[in-house]
Order: sequence, then C-alpha cells, then structure tokens
Amino acid sequence: MEIQHPYLLFLGDVADALAAKTALGIVDWRQDWCVGQTRLDGCQADTGLPDMTIAEAKAAGARTMIVGAVNAGGVLPDHWIASIVEAIEAGMDVASGLHTRLASVPQIAEAAERGGRSLFDVRHTSERFPTGKGTKRTGKRLLTVGTDCSVGKKYTALALEKGMRERGYSADFKATGQTGVFISGRGVAIDAVIADFISGAVEWLSPDAPEHHWDMIEGQGSLFHPSFAGVSMGLLHGAQPDAFVVCHEPTRTAMRGVQTPLPGIQEVIDLTISCGKLTNPSIRCVGLAVNTSELNEEDAVRTLDGLTEAFEFPATDPIRFGVDPIVDQIARDFPNP
Amino acid sequence: MEIQHPYLLFLGDVADALAAKTALGIVDWRQDWCVGQTRLDGCQADTGLPDMTIAEAKAAGARTMIVGAVNAGGVLPDHWIASIVEAIEAGMDVASGLHTRLASVPQIAEAAERGGRSLFDVRHTSERFPTGKGTKRTGKRLLTVGTDCSVGKKYTALALEKGMRERGYSADFKATGQTGVFISGRGVAIDAVIADFISGAVEWLSPDAPEHHWDMIEGQGSLFHPSFAGVSMGLLHGAQPDAFVVCHEPTRTAMRGVQTPLPGIQEVIDLTISCGKLTNPSIRCVGLAVNTSELNEEDAVRTLDGLTEAFEFPATDPIRFGVDPIVDQIARDFPNP
Repeated sequence: MEIQHPYLLFLGDVADALAAKTALGIVDWRQDWCVGQTRLDGCQADTGLPDMTIAEAKAAGARTMIVGAVNAGGVLPDHWIASIVEAIEAGMDVASGLHTRLASVPQIAEAAERGGRSLFDVRHTSERFPTGKGTKRTGKRLLTVGTDCSVGKKYTALALEKGMRERGYSADFKATGQTGVFISGRGVAIDAVIADFISGAVEWLSPDAPEHHWDMIEGQGSLFHPSFAGVSMGLLHGAQPDAFVVCHEPTRTAMRGVQTPLPGIQEVIDLTISCGKLTNPSIRCVGLAVNTSELNEEDAVRTLDGLTEAFEFPATDPIRFGVDPIVDQIARDFPNP
Repeated sequence: MEIQHPYLLFLGDVADALAAKTALGIVDWRQDWCVGQTRLDGCQADTGLPDMTIAEAKAAGARTMIVGAVNAGGVLPDHWIASIVEAIEAGMDVASGLHTRLASVPQIAEAAERGGRSLFDVRHTSERFPTGKGTKRTGKRLLTVGTDCSVGKKYTALALEKGMRERGYSADFKATGQTGVFISGRGVAIDAVIADFISGAVEWLSPDAPEHHWDMIEGQGSLFHPSFAGVSMGLLHGAQPDAFVVCHEPTRTAMRGVQTPLPGIQEVIDLTISCGKLTNPSIRCVGLAVNTSELNEEDAVRTLDGLTEAFEFPATDPIRFGVDPIVDQIARDFPNP
C-alpha cells in the first residue's frame, strides 16, 4: 500500500486544533506534499494551507484527500460523507485515520467502486503478515523508544531521518502509527495489528537493506506502560535495532492515561537492551531526545547538560536544539568505511 | 460468550491425531462434558469417545458441536459444511477453532440465523476490550510462563486449578488460547486480539475477585520468543500475577519455529519479575513445571531434583508427578487465614 500525494487535507468542522493534529503533523513534515485544506462551516482548526474546494484541489493536482481530523470517538460524522464522496467522484483516493472504516459506509464504498479509487484506513490493516522470525536482516536500524507514550518518538525518528540525510546517509523513516503513515505515504499502524503478528509486521516494514542504509523506525508506547508494553515489546523484537534513542518528557509525573509511575531513563535503557538483544545482540543507546517544551530556555539547557553528563551519549531536544548531537554519536558508533 | 456443554466433538476426516489435538485436549480435561465424537469416512484420529451421528448426539443431550480438528491451513473444507449445517438444524450451537469464520460460509450463517443458534469462532474475537489500566485488582492470580512456546503452560494451569480445588481453594482456570476456551467454555484467544488491547483483554478476563480466590491464568508464548513476546508481555501486565510458574522442556535446543537459542530458567524468572512488577510489585515465582516426556524415569527424577535444589521453589512434571509440590509452595507463600 502506498498513499499517493499530493494531498488535500480535509478538516471537517472539528472544534479545536488538537482534533486536527494528524493534519498538522502532515504539514509539519510534508508541507510540499499538500496542495491545501478543505474545511466545513464552523471548523476551528487551521493548518495554514490555502482553503480550497475539492474541485480546486483536484485542479491543483491533489491525488488523495486525507481525512486529517478526528471528532470525539473517532467515528465518521454523517455530514462529512458528502465531501468524501465528492473527492472520490473528482478522481481522488481517500485516506482516513478514523475508527470507522471508509468502506463500511455504503455511499463511500459504492463511489470508490464506481470510480476505481482506493480507500485507505490507516488505523486498520488489511495486510496479512507472517509471524516474526527474529532472523538478522541486513542494513542498519534505529528505533525510538520512550519513558511513556506521547513523548516525541515520531518527531525524533523523522528529525533523525532528515538529519542523517543531510549528512549524506541513506536513511528512511518507517512509520508505525497513523500520522506517520500519512507523513511517509506508507507504513503500518502497529497497534492495530493482530497480537500474534506484531513483530512480523515490523519485519515486513523494515526488510533487508544495503549494509549502510538506516531505517529510522518510529516507536510506540513504552515497555513500562501497562496498556501498551506488548506493542512496544513486539516492535522492539521486530525492529531488531542496532541503535535506539530514548524519548522523555522531564516534567511528567505519571504515565499517560494510567496511574503507573514513570520509569527512570536508566531503567528504560536497561530493559530495552535486555529485551532487544534477543534479536540484535549489539543493540546500544545512542542518545536521549528530551521534550523540554514545558521548561524555559535556561532550565532546558541545564536539564540537557545534566543528562549528557550523566549518560554516555548526548541529550538534546530535537525541536528546540535539533538532532545533530545524536547524528554525531551515530557517526562515531557506526563509522561508514 | 459462554460455550454451552455437553459437547459433541466433530473430527472431520483428518489424517492423524495431531490434527485433532484440540478435541484430544478437551477429552483430557472435560470428558464429562462430551457425549461423543462424529467422524467422517477416512478419519485417522480417535478421541476414544463413542462414535455417534449428529442426531444421536442431540438425543444424548449435546448442546454444542465443537469442530475440534484442523486440516492443513486451518481452512474449513467444503465437505465438512453439511455436518455443521446438520448440527445447527438439529438445534446445536457450533464452535470452531479454524481460521475460517463459521459465519463467513453462507450456508452456515443462514442455518444459524434460521435456527437462532450461536456460532463461536474461538480463534477470532468479536468482543471489544478497553485498553489495560494496570490498576491493582482484588483476588489472587497465578500465571504460567514459559522458556518457549508449547512447553505445557495450558496443562500446568489446568492441573493447578484441579490441585488447588482439591486442597479447598477457590480457583478458576482462565483460558487465553483456543483449546483452553473449549475446555473452560469461555475465555479469550489472546493472540487474536488487536495489539493495543492485549493487557486490556486479560484485565477483562480476570476481573476483581474475592481476596482468597485464585485465577490460574494460561500463559502464551515466551518473553524470549521473537515471534510472540509482545503477546507474552501484554499478558503478563494484564494478568498482574501474584505468583508465576515457569514451564520448561529440558531437551529442546532452540525456540519453536525459529533459530533463537532457548533462554535459561533463571533468565525467564528474572525478566518475568522485572517486567511483572510494573503491575504487581510483589510478583514471585512459586515453581517450575518441567515436561520430562523425552526423559526416562531416572533422568526425569534426577533433572527435577537438580532443579529443586538449584532454585528456591519446587520443580515437578505436572503430567508425570502431579502439581502437589507447587500447591504446597503456594500454600506456604500465601497462607489463608
């Protein structure tokens, strides 16, 4: 499956920017893939892209309309259906991150069938995967792991793809969540896979590659999160990373959505190595990606300096200060001949 | 969902006993729930139960026909459909462990609809689960874990249910795999759940219970198996066990189906405690269940004696020597007032 760009971003009539965070994430990383946005009356979100009708977007070259906003519950509101059908009839594919499957809505399924257009439900997966094998694959892999959910694992993997490419490395972001799939046009929402096939799906996502090529694999959840650690574990085994980066939010006091205390960074490093060496005995940590958005500049610098001193690898905030220190560490640990 | 017994076991025309291992597992543990078996011409498997027609089974009180055999690929052969429809028309529910969903076969779906009968596909799950919360629940829980797949985790949990009940404990086997679901009439095939909901499904399966009640939860896979460790991790967090038993096959040299070396027993204990304490800080190992079927009596005894000496808890072969030593250990570690 590959979602074709250019994209038109459909925001519906959602009530705030948070509800459009998928669309905002796409614009952050792939603005050049987007021709514009379509909003319904009352929409309170704005990506900053030009507003346009579906016909205008088609004329501007859009090949896929992304339903890049989500209302409460993730269901598809009835009054969004007409826009989706209109996009299909204009000749676009449609991709959605909603719980509701596009093809489960008869008008949408029929329009796609009639027009021969593709429907992508990135929160679901129709791909069948083999079970994981754990066999060593060629090429290099980096996985972003976390002390918690929502600490910057996707952002860090994308920033590292960019940073590695700027240094002349061959590097590809590999998406394991829905926004990541839109940003890269492909990938697997790994938490939507049947449990038996978690590691197998990641092996499929990141196959054999040239020796010095890097896949920068987006992590999910945390080995210490009681809701999602199974996903994180299968993802770690399937990714068989040579290197990993620990993502962390220093002001958080409990895991997201539950009452479990946050683990320490060293605990995350230790358990990631302890479990990860099953499929890659030479796994190592190459950096810390710290979300310092809740700290002022001075506190942020002090926090990062303290962490860099305490650990044997660099700590940086990818948004505030970039990922160069981590790319430097990768270059030291894995010298290209 | 609860599968109603008495059962009629349908074996089709499978080529060997291995293909009927689900039916054989049911007879091992719930022979009193089974009125007989139905076999087609050429069937090479035999549960030892009386052969009978579907009409005879109905007259004998059967309420559910279990499709307890599986051909290569797990698909439903066309020539089994007539028997399934006949059972439905005789007034039975039908439960299947095949990959093919019963309701995906129009004749079967229509017959069930007409007769108001239930169809159970235990390899799939239609139940929706919340994500796991990790909150401590009341009651006691034991989980069987393994150095590998297929080392006796189901058998051990069932033997412990029986052994604990014989000592006067309130104890229930909780099934997490398809044969276990048939044996207990309920449960969840945990490897068939969407990855995001592994621990949530186990929390649903083993809810709050009276203080001295024990759920004996069937383990799946191994934290050291590169195909299935994600399932094992989510199951461990969701089960939040007070006690666990490590199941082991001492003659095996590599993990089942892959080339990964087997972990040591101590490694399994350490990682189970290290991860399990996230949702139950007082998790402890109470015994080793060793499958000695490949050893002669003398070697089996020597192996178990050596393990009992090396660890601080009993080692036994549940099939050969029973689980009394482990029940004794539980009684010591968790005294009922």
